Amino acid sequence: MTLLTRRTALAGTAAVAAAAVTSGLRDAVAAAPPSGKQAPSVYRYKIGSFEVTAVSDGGRVVPLADNFVRNAKKDEVNTALEAAFLEKDKFPFVFTPLVVNTGKQLVVIDTGNGRGALQQSGGTAGQFHDNLAAAGIDPKTVDAVIISHFHGDHIGGLLDAGNKLAFPNAEVLVPAPEWAFWMDDGNMNRAPEAARGGFANARRVFDAFGRKVTQYEAGKEVVPGITAVGTPGHTPGHMSHLVADGNASVMVQGDVSNLPALFVRNPGWHAMFDMDPQMAEASRRKLYDQVVADRTLLQGYHFPFPAHGHLEKDGQGYRLVPAQWSTVL
Amino acid sequence: MTLLTRRTALAGTAAVAAAAVTSGLRDAVAAAPPSGKQAPSVYRYKIGSFEVTAVSDGGRVVPLADNFVRNAKKDEVNTALEAAFLEKDKFPFVFTPLVVNTGKQLVVIDTGNGRGALQQSGGTAGQFHDNLAAAGIDPKTVDAVIISHFHGDHIGGLLDAGNKLAFPNAEVLVPAPEWAFWMDDGNMNRAPEAARGGFANARRVFDAFGRKVTQYEAGKEVVPGITAVGTPGHTPGHMSHLVADGNASVMVQGDVSNLPALFVRNPGWHAMFDMDPQMAEASRRKLYDQVVADRTLLQGYHFPFPAHGHLEKDGQGYRLVPAQWSTVL
Repeated sequence: MTLLTRRTALAGTAAVAAAAVTSGLRDAVAAAPPSGKQAPSVYRYKIGSFEVTAVSDGGRVVPLADNFVRNAKKDEVNTALEAAFLEKDKFPFVFTPLVVNTGKQLVVIDTGNGRGALQQSGGTAGQFHDNLAAAGIDPKTVDAVIISHFHGDHIGGLLDAGNKLAFPNAEVLVPAPEWAFWMDDGNMNRAPEAARGGFANARRVFDAFGRKVTQYEAGKEVVPGITAVGTPGHTPGHMSHLVADGNASVMVQGDVSNLPALFVRNPGWHAMFDMDPQMAEASRRKLYDQVVADRTLLQGYHFPFPAHGHLEKDGQGYRLVPAQWSTVL
Repeated sequence: MTLLTRRTALAGTAAVAAAAVTSGLRDAVAAAPPSGKQAPSVYRYKIGSFEVTAVSDGGRVVPLADNFVRNAKKDEVNTALEAAFLEKDKFPFVFTPLVVNTGKQLVVIDTGNGRGALQQSGGTAGQFHDNLAAAGIDPKTVDAVIISHFHGDHIGGLLDAGNKLAFPNAEVLVPAPEWAFWMDDGNMNRAPEAARGGFANARRVFDAFGRKVTQYEAGKEVVPGITAVGTPGHTPGHMSHLVADGNASVMVQGDVSNLPALFVRNPGWHAMFDMDPQMAEASRRKLYDQVVADRTLLQGYHFPFPAHGHLEKDGQGYRLVPAQWSTVL
């Protein structure tokens, strides 16, 4: 695949090239330095009277593992990446926590990788708290933090640089079946050595604030306007959250799928980090058939920022139609 | 079309609803007020060593005119809008000027509606100069402003609030055939009364700085690294611009099409504001077949922010695959 070159561009011009006074001969008057950095990735939208803010935690581009999709060949995965104009052999892993101001409470859903990841990733991941600041949101004003599941990229941002709760006035709400699974020492001890990191990390995070959490079950309104929807499989107690006000709603899916170009397009593909792939697929298909039927807006933690849109059926799978960006709220 | 209600969400949960300690009973500790406004719509990416910044001018949602697409029924247009999860009977008209720092020159391509539009639109359009400031770009450091064509939403931002050139140190580069058409008094006088506004507006803008412009022709490298590509039809002298450094490039299409959900999907549709619809369609198909064949990144002035992606063929038309947002530069 060749890139458009200047030569082909010129050959493709409809008008005949003719003599013209061209520029570029004057000295640059200012020689403005490049900015050198991305603008803060913050985006707002309304759900009824609720103000929703997508606040990126950044991302990592990781090498594509051979068994990244357990039931698809690496070649098939690369074909899907290239069809989406993404680089082959690389996986863009991005993270978008959400902030919901219901008018009565300020709620954070998932928290990113945490400050440690900032240094570890060279600044690409762990941006959530910096982007929160850019969004003008003070963590001290957060009333509730809802966790979808206990993977490190969702709970890491619960702690600040001093390993204290980063949202000092917030109630931390966690899925009851997730707590039951990860905080059970028997489960940890029975897990293979390679799988123990997740158990240890959950203890590191929750022990830092004395395990002061509130457990919630699927089907419950966790805070007024935000209802837990059980979508297990990715982890045993994985939850999605329906944020609804009046007739408006957005389904906040957590990790029901990851990169849309792979797993929305191919809902039968089993990502290596889905703990129970069959159950994860069943949860995914059920939720997606429902949001397609109801034309519900879908916010995906691992979708490209600002990480929301609608699903349409496409062949054997679905396609994410990103929401039209609005420059006003 | 129903929205997902809490009832259906609960019915759809995989886990059984069970008693749980739910939150929402504590008083909000801070009662943080909503932000009430969108974050600045600014996004950066690299083309080789060039730093490109998409800086939104905002947008307007306008009622869908009956003859908005000259050769399609309003019902067909509404069907296309709804298929893209957009509201029927409304047209989201958005504007994204581009800033290119080539390392040697700071270049602006098109300028938005201008400050007058800010008040007129209630703040939704005419945001370019405010968003430039949010991006940390000082208009005094801009070396060149390249204009694609003379419609008001592209040239309005050339002037500041005092009706002076908003980029006081910049060379203003305009398409020679565009200048020839719009600045010809004979053309203005022969135009029907309803079409004279464009001529008058071009005079208002360019007269404000003594018509000090540099004209350029299709096929010419307008500034080093930015080459004009003739794409006439939308207006007689409409130009696109290929921004290229090394093997990397982006085709900056101006108004080769407007809203992708309508005119990328249906390249044969003739928008009411295309002055020569047949020529516009020919330019569109030629450019799009080329960017599809070469997998060239495409930046569209009227695409949803950040207004760039790749095209794929889809049926009789094309589909825009938005570029994956990167939270780092």
